[in-house]
Amino acid sequence: MQNDIHATIEALRAQSPLVHNITNYVVMQVTANALLAAGASPLMAHAPEELEDLLSIASALVLNIGTLDKAWLASMEKAGIIALSKNVPTVLDPVGAGASRLRTDAALHLLDIACPAVVRGNGSEIMALAPKLTGTDAATKGVDSTRTAIEAKAAALDIARRHHCVVSISGAEDLITNGICLARVRGGSPLMPLVTGLGCTATALTAACIAVAPSHFIGATAAMAIMAEAGENAAASAKGPGSFLPLFFDALYNLSPAHAATRVTEE
Amino acid sequence: MQNDIHATIEALRAQSPLVHNITNYVVMQVTANALLAAGASPLMAHAPEELEDLLSIASALVLNIGTLDKAWLASMEKAGIIALSKNVPTVLDPVGAGASRLRTDAALHLLDIACPAVVRGNGSEIMALAPKLTGTDAATKGVDSTRTAIEAKAAALDIARRHHCVVSISGAEDLITNGICLARVRGGSPLMPLVTGLGCTATALTAACIAVAPSHFIGATAAMAIMAEAGENAAASAKGPGSFLPLFFDALYNLSPAHAATRVTEE
Amino acid sequence: MQNDIHATIEALRAQSPLVHNITNYVVMQVTANALLAAGASPLMAHAPEELEDLLSIASALVLNIGTLDKAWLASMEKAGIIALSKNVPTVLDPVGAGASRLRTDAALHLLDIACPAVVRGNGSEIMALAPKLTGTDAATKGVDSTRTAIEAKAAALDIARRHHCVVSISGAEDLITNGICLARVRGGSPLMPLVTGLGCTATALTAACIAVAPSHFIGATAAMAIMAEAGENAAASAKGPGSFLPLFFDALYNLSPAHAATRVTEE
Repeated sequence: MQNDIHATIEALRAQSPLVHNITNYVVMQVTANALLAAGASPLMAHAPEELEDLLSIASALVLNIGTLDKAWLASMEKAGIIALSKNVPTVLDPVGAGASRLRTDAALHLLDIACPAVVRGNGSEIMALAPKLTGTDAATKGVDSTRTAIEAKAAALDIARRHHCVVSISGAEDLITNGICLARVRGGSPLMPLVTGLGCTATALTAACIAVAPSHFIGATAAMAIMAEAGENAAASAKGPGSFLPLFFDALYNLSPAHAATRVTEE
Repeated sequence: MQNDIHATIEALRAQSPLVHNITNYVVMQVTANALLAAGASPLMAHAPEELEDLLSIASALVLNIGTLDKAWLASMEKAGIIALSKNVPTVLDPVGAGASRLRTDAALHLLDIACPAVVRGNGSEIMALAPKLTGTDAATKGVDSTRTAIEAKAAALDIARRHHCVVSISGAEDLITNGICLARVRGGSPLMPLVTGLGCTATALTAACIAVAPSHFIGATAAMAIMAEAGENAAASAKGPGSFLPLFFDALYNLSPAHAATRVTEE
Repeated sequence: MQNDIHATIEALRAQSPLVHNITNYVVMQVTANALLAAGASPLMAHAPEELEDLLSIASALVLNIGTLDKAWLASMEKAGIIALSKNVPTVLDPVGAGASRLRTDAALHLLDIACPAVVRGNGSEIMALAPKLTGTDAATKGVDSTRTAIEAKAAALDIARRHHCVVSISGAEDLITNGICLARVRGGSPLMPLVTGLGCTATALTAACIAVAPSHFIGATAAMAIMAEAGENAAASAKGPGSFLPLFFDALYNLSPAHAATRVTEE
């Protein structure tokens, strides 16, 4: 698997896929910068009138409900359906699922109609999308997770199998599954949850990687390997979450695909 | 008072309050990062449908009119009323009050219906909220202040007494009053007005601090002490407003509560 | 011409013009910070109800369609018309023109009704605004250019002459024309296209400069000289696009107007 991860990161840089993002206001800048630093090309656009045109040139779509409202949700629904019809793979980030009924419902609805290739979230969010399995006590603290990736493993497997998608959970150790195979990624830094938008950045990089990877499972895992590698390298010389962020972009830009691949193990 | 300030900053880190922000597009990222670096947990959300859910888990609310429009203003009104009913304290930042009638009216309306615990702005903005006292010549330069905190002192006392709230004014020297007591905070750096969103960051930190402080007055003062301390520390090694910002987040993260408290004097 | 460029940059710092921006969500923070670091005062506002008030105190207007939708486009139209009536010069940034019909149409419509003083874009965008001249194959990769400034020269001259405006094209070498005179600006860094919003930053600085310059042509050229100078200085010590950005703001703040002016040559 490490060879595939390595090749996917090389392909990301060589092909520079265009990633269309309908995402939240807080993270637009950081995710655009991360996509650029990692070798992809970001596009942020939400107007319903241009989704058809833009998804004709995009290689992947991000749907991120971080600052959703009715108008943006309608755009996400339309974009998800268009992307499906054009075989443009979608990554869904259910930001804050579990924190409000609106978010949980929106995420479940997008999961149904957009058939995302990958669902990428934190432990709390993934558990909120499998309420029958996890109960209603899968509390989230707003948009911050109170659960590890491992705690959300059963929910991830359930979602992956029922929705025929990959589920990717970020945490101190990341967990990625397609319902059959399971990969773990080690690395990163405790500073990462102290910088807003790094979960959403993992989502954006996931979209970039699945656009060029041999499978959605490999692509989703490659993205988390990139995050883990760049995060750990940045943290090595950071003095706090402020200096971490520019170092993180530099680390994405200077990343060793081979070393990033070593962070992955398959179960 | 310095002991209370010290204890409030410790409590902020220990309790990590969830701060719900309905704020402007320009500063969402910087205020979220500041809240995280200082020890709090940020949530940005404006959809009317989820305000009830989110304010059930939030410890404080920020209403910031920096890029207001009718739809966002309606969300702010609804959130302010819900927060009041749930005893979630609100901080109002009247960004650009005085620069347009829409902003002045919106700020005064929110002051009436949301009964904010704290109104936090710059000198021009605070003077614009007490027009009978200050006349209509309390000019603002867009969203930048043309008045010092001291010039706005009479307006602050007037607003605090009439609205039973704390008024916190940022400037080279900050001034905080509950209409009876008055605190001053010294520190910071001339680089701070050259970085967008640091006034709004003071507002967000004010919300975080009043969520854990023994009084709104102490909480509002603690937030300005944090700003002054982190700002001065960051400026010590900054080479301009660009390097200042990551250093500022690092300084928030590495802050000494005891030293920050020494920046406060009470009149 | 270099003396005029030098004087314009000095005037920017001395007069600190207020620049009203109706711009895209991705770049609001970076363009506000660049305006502040360069000596101007940024204002971001889109509510139709306050455009009249704000354009009464603003010295220039930016219309940027990077994340346009119908509501924001209506605000841009209204602002453009008000600015025209108040002799406030407008800079139009046709972000992503050519990537969707909505963007191309919106840019052409704003070009017609707002009579911008300057149109500022990358090579692909400028070519998309002169379709009769360039054909329909002036492809853009989303919001990233696939054309150099030189390739777009004929389109720039055509637009400048038909619309009586200045056209400013960013690229490895920048090209600015008023339809008669033509200036080139050398400098910058290959890291610049890897940071989101630096094209939009050039647009915002163009607005700041034309507010204080002897002509729109001089102002537009001065802005690109500032970008080229600060970009090259920042790149000298950057280790990637992450460390580049804070260094770029510092370089704007510490800029030598005299040296920036040397980057300009006139044809």
